[in-house]
Amino acid sequence: MRVDINADVGESFSRWDLGDDAELAPVLSSVNIACGFHAGDPLVMTRTVRLAVEHGLAVGAHVSYRDLAGFGRRFVDVDPAELAAEVRYQIGALQAVAATEGATVTYCKPHGALYNTIGHHPGQARAVVEALCGLADTGSVLTLLGLPGSLASELAERAGLPTAVEAFCDRAYTPEGTLVPRKDPGAVLHDPVVVAARTVRLVTDGVVDAIDGTPVPLRPDSLCVHGDSPGAVDMARAVRAALDNAGVQVASFTGSAA
Amino acid sequence: MRVDINADVGESFSRWDLGDDAELAPVLSSVNIACGFHAGDPLVMTRTVRLAVEHGLAVGAHVSYRDLAGFGRRFVDVDPAELAAEVRYQIGALQAVAATEGATVTYCKPHGALYNTIGHHPGQARAVVEALCGLADTGSVLTLLGLPGSLASELAERAGLPTAVEAFCDRAYTPEGTLVPRKDPGAVLHDPVVVAARTVRLVTDGVVDAIDGTPVPLRPDSLCVHGDSPGAVDMARAVRAALDNAGVQVASFTGSAA
Amino acid sequence: MRVDINADVGESFSRWDLGDDAELAPVLSSVNIACGFHAGDPLVMTRTVRLAVEHGLAVGAHVSYRDLAGFGRRFVDVDPAELAAEVRYQIGALQAVAATEGATVTYCKPHGALYNTIGHHPGQARAVVEALCGLADTGSVLTLLGLPGSLASELAERAGLPTAVEAFCDRAYTPEGTLVPRKDPGAVLHDPVVVAARTVRLVTDGVVDAIDGTPVPLRPDSLCVHGDSPGAVDMARAVRAALDNAGVQVASFTGSAA
Amino acid sequence: MRVDINADVGESFSRWDLGDDAELAPVLSSVNIACGFHAGDPLVMTRTVRLAVEHGLAVGAHVSYRDLAGFGRRFVDVDPAELAAEVRYQIGALQAVAATEGATVTYCKPHGALYNTIGHHPGQARAVVEALCGLADTGSVLTLLGLPGSLASELAERAGLPTAVEAFCDRAYTPEGTLVPRKDPGAVLHDPVVVAARTVRLVTDGVVDAIDGTPVPLRPDSLCVHGDSPGAVDMARAVRAALDNAGVQVASFTGSAA
Repeated sequence: MRVDINADVGESFSRWDLGDDAELAPVLSSVNIACGFHAGDPLVMTRTVRLAVEHGLAVGAHVSYRDLAGFGRRFVDVDPAELAAEVRYQIGALQAVAATEGATVTYCKPHGALYNTIGHHPGQARAVVEALCGLADTGSVLTLLGLPGSLASELAERAGLPTAVEAFCDRAYTPEGTLVPRKDPGAVLHDPVVVAARTVRLVTDGVVDAIDGTPVPLRPDSLCVHGDSPGAVDMARAVRAALDNAGVQVASFTGSAA
Repeated sequence: MRVDINADVGESFSRWDLGDDAELAPVLSSVNIACGFHAGDPLVMTRTVRLAVEHGLAVGAHVSYRDLAGFGRRFVDVDPAELAAEVRYQIGALQAVAATEGATVTYCKPHGALYNTIGHHPGQARAVVEALCGLADTGSVLTLLGLPGSLASELAERAGLPTAVEAFCDRAYTPEGTLVPRKDPGAVLHDPVVVAARTVRLVTDGVVDAIDGTPVPLRPDSLCVHGDSPGAVDMARAVRAALDNAGVQVASFTGSAA
Repeated sequence: MRVDINADVGESFSRWDLGDDAELAPVLSSVNIACGFHAGDPLVMTRTVRLAVEHGLAVGAHVSYRDLAGFGRRFVDVDPAELAAEVRYQIGALQAVAATEGATVTYCKPHGALYNTIGHHPGQARAVVEALCGLADTGSVLTLLGLPGSLASELAERAGLPTAVEAFCDRAYTPEGTLVPRKDPGAVLHDPVVVAARTVRLVTDGVVDAIDGTPVPLRPDSLCVHGDSPGAVDMARAVRAALDNAGVQVASFTGSAA
Repeated sequence: MRVDINADVGESFSRWDLGDDAELAPVLSSVNIACGFHAGDPLVMTRTVRLAVEHGLAVGAHVSYRDLAGFGRRFVDVDPAELAAEVRYQIGALQAVAATEGATVTYCKPHGALYNTIGHHPGQARAVVEALCGLADTGSVLTLLGLPGSLASELAERAGLPTAVEAFCDRAYTPEGTLVPRKDPGAVLHDPVVVAARTVRLVTDGVVDAIDGTPVPLRPDSLCVHGDSPGAVDMARAVRAALDNAGVQVASFTGSAA
C-alpha cells in the first residue's frame, strides 16, 4: 500500500512568513509550491524548492488567479485565454527556479478559488487543461492533482494527461463523497488521533465515514495536510506516524519515493 | 557582412497598448520580450511570441526590476540574491510561454534601469550573471546582450557564457564610445536618412562618428531600434532598407536567420 | 433644460497612456477619475484633477475592484467588508490629491465590473453604499452615479444619500429601458449624427427609441460619453454641439456649472 | 515630563499577519499605520484605526515607496513629482479610513528606505515636504516625525510645518548622536532592563550613552518601539513601565493624551 502526502508550501511573500514549511517537510512526499500569483516570490520559491530537494519531495506548481491582495481565495471571472497563459507563466517560472536547484516540476495543483472553480466551470477548467496540454506537447508532462469528480480532471484525462485525486485528512465528507462546506458545523476535524485513524482506514480500506456515518468509498492518490494553522504540524505528524505504523509507504504519486 | 536588429516588444499590459510590434516585426531579427515585471502580461507575452514565430525572429527575455508602476526605469536597490531569483523567474515564465508556441528563448537583454545598473554595479551584475549561469547549467544557455564594456557582460564572459554587444542607431556617441546621455543636446538623432547612413557605415566599416566628429571604432553584434515613439517605425524601416541595400545580412546573433 | 456630460478619464498608468483627456475635457461637465485600482496612479490622478480644475469640471471618484491586470473589467468575488474599505481608500486618496489642487470630490461612479455587479449583487451593493454613508457621516457627501434601477442606487437613496442616473448616448436600449448587451448586434451606435439627435431627444423629451422602435421614457441626470476609442472624441463633440444648439445647459448634476 | 511612544502597526497584508498590534497598543501613545504601499490593505487599515481609537492613540500615516515586494526597505529612485503624489495618495487614503472610524491623521512618519533616504536626499526630501505642505494648505496639518538632523525635517521646519524628533530605545548611538548601523556589532540592544533604564535616563536627563560611553545629548519628542520580533512586546512593556514608574507622562506629541 502506498499514498502520497501533499501540502501547500512556499506561501510566504516579501517580509511576510506563512506556514512552517521546514517542520512540515519531513512528513510529506509532495509540495505544492506557490508561484507568485497568490503567494510566494522568486526568492521564497527558490528557498522552498531547496527544501523540497533536501527532503526528496516531489515539486508541484500551486498555480492561482493573479490576486495577491486576496491570496487567491476569491473567484475572478478571468477570460479563459488569459487564464491559460497565466497558468503557463507560473509553471514556467517555477520550472526555471526548480531546474536551477536540480529539481523538476512534476505536477500542478491549482490553488484556492481556482481549485474549486475548475471543478465545475467549463471555460476555466478547459483553460487549465489547455495550459497543461501545451506544456505536455513540449515534453513537460505534469500530473493534474484535484478533487474526485473535478471537471478539470475529467477534461485532463480525456486529453491524455495524467491526473491524481486527493483527499483531505481533516475534513468531513458528505454521503456523496464531497467535502462538507467549511462554514457548516463539523466540517473540520481537530483531534489528531481521530484524524490519523480515519486516514489509515481511508488508505488501507478505501473507505471514509461520512458526516452522517455512511461509509463512503474513496481511493485517493494523495492526502492533503496543512501547515499554516496552530496544531497543523502536529496533526500532519500524527497522520504520517499512523500511516508508517500501518505499513503504508508514503511516496509521491509521480513516482519519486520520499 | 551580417548584423542583428533587435527591439523591445511586448510592452503592452492589461488594457494598455504600447508600441506597434506588428509593424516593427518585419524589420527585425530579434525581439526583446517583456516578462511581466516592467510590462507585458502572460497573454501579451503569448501573442508576442506568436508574432516572433511568424516572422522567424529570435526570442529574448527582456527582464526587469519588479516595478510595473515605474516601467522598470528606476533604480531599485534590490538584494542580489533576490534579483537573481527574479531574473530566473522571468526567464522561466517566458520559456514556458515560448515553448508552447514552438519557440526557444535564446538570449537575455535586461531592461531600463537594470540594463544601465549592471553595466557598473558589482552586486547586481553578478546576480544577473548568476541567474544565467544557473540556467546554463540546466541546458538553457542564453546569450547576454548588453552595452560594450558592461560589467555584467564581462562577468558573463569570464563565466563562460555567450555575450553579444549592441549599438543604438539613433543615439550620439562620445569619443570614448559611450552613449551621450539622453538629457544632453544632440543625444538623440531624428533624421532617418542620417541614421540609416550612419548605421551602414557602422556595420560595414566598424566606425561611428562621435558627437565631436572623432571616428570611434565599434563592432556591434546587434543594432537596437525603437517602436514606441512617433516616427520610430519609419526610422527602423529606413535602417533596415539601407542595410539590405548595402548587402548586409540581417540575422540574429544567436544563429537563426531572419 | 439641463444635463450633465460625464466621461471616464485619468485611465493612464505608469508608462501607458490611455484616452485623450485633454481633447475630451471641453465637452464635459463631470469627470470620473480612476483611483489607482484599475487604472491611474498618483501622478496621473494629480494631472487629471488639474485638467478638471482648468475646465471647471465636477470631480468624481471612479472606484474599482483591485485589479490592474484586468482593468477592473472582471467580476471579483471580494468580501463586502473588504470592498467597503477599498472604496473608502480610493475615495480618500483622490480627495487628498484633489484638495491639493483646489478641487473637491463630489460624486462616485463605480467602474467596469463593479459598476455592473452592484446593479444587482446585494452584498457588494451594500458595501459601496456603506462606504459612502461612512464618508457622508464625516461631512464628505458624495452622489452615487449609476444605471437606472441599480440596486446600489436604490440602497443609497434609502440611506439618504444623493444619487444620479446616467444614460449612454451611443448605446442601444431594450424596450425595458436596459442596455442591449455589447455582444449583441446593434448594441453600439457609431454615427455621430444619429447619436447626437437621439441624445437631444432624450434630454428634451425624456424619450429614447429602443432597438425595436418602442419609445422608452428615460430621464437621465447625466450622459456618459467615451474618449478611448477611435472617433470617440468626435462623437462626444457632436453630442455636446447638438445639446448646445438645442439650448440645453450642460452642467454637473452636483451643482457646479461648466 | 512627557514623551510619546510610537510603533509601526498595521503591517499585515492580505492573508499575512505581522506584528502583535493588539498586545502592543496599550504601551503606545501613537501608531504609524501602513498605508498600502509597503504593507497594509484597506481592511487592515480599517481594523488598525479601530484599535487606535479604542486605545486613544494618535494616528500617523506610515507612508512608503510603492514596493510591496520589498516591504518598502529598498531605495527606489523615484521621481520627486511622483513621490509627492504618492505621499498625498497614501495620506488621503488613510484619512478617509480614519475619518469613518472617528479618527484624524495627525502626523506622518515615512517608512523604511524612504525614511532613511529623506534624511539626506534633497529631491526626495523636498517631495515629502511638498506633499505635506499641499495638505497643510487645505487644512490637514500633519507633523513630520523623523530622525534628529533629517534633511526632510529641516525643510519642513523652514516651510512652517510642525516636526517631531524620535529616538530608538533599543538601538546603540554613535558619539555624534546617529544610530550605529544595524550590521555593526552591538547595534541592537536586547536586554529589556538595560533598555528601560537607558530610556528613562534619555527622557528625564536628555542624555544617552553612546556605544563608546560618551554621553550624548538627545531630546526626543517620541520613542520608537517595535512589535514584530520575538521579545519585542516585552521590551516595549518594560520601557513603558519604567517611564510610568519614573513619573513620565506618555502622550502623543500631537497633543492627544494616551
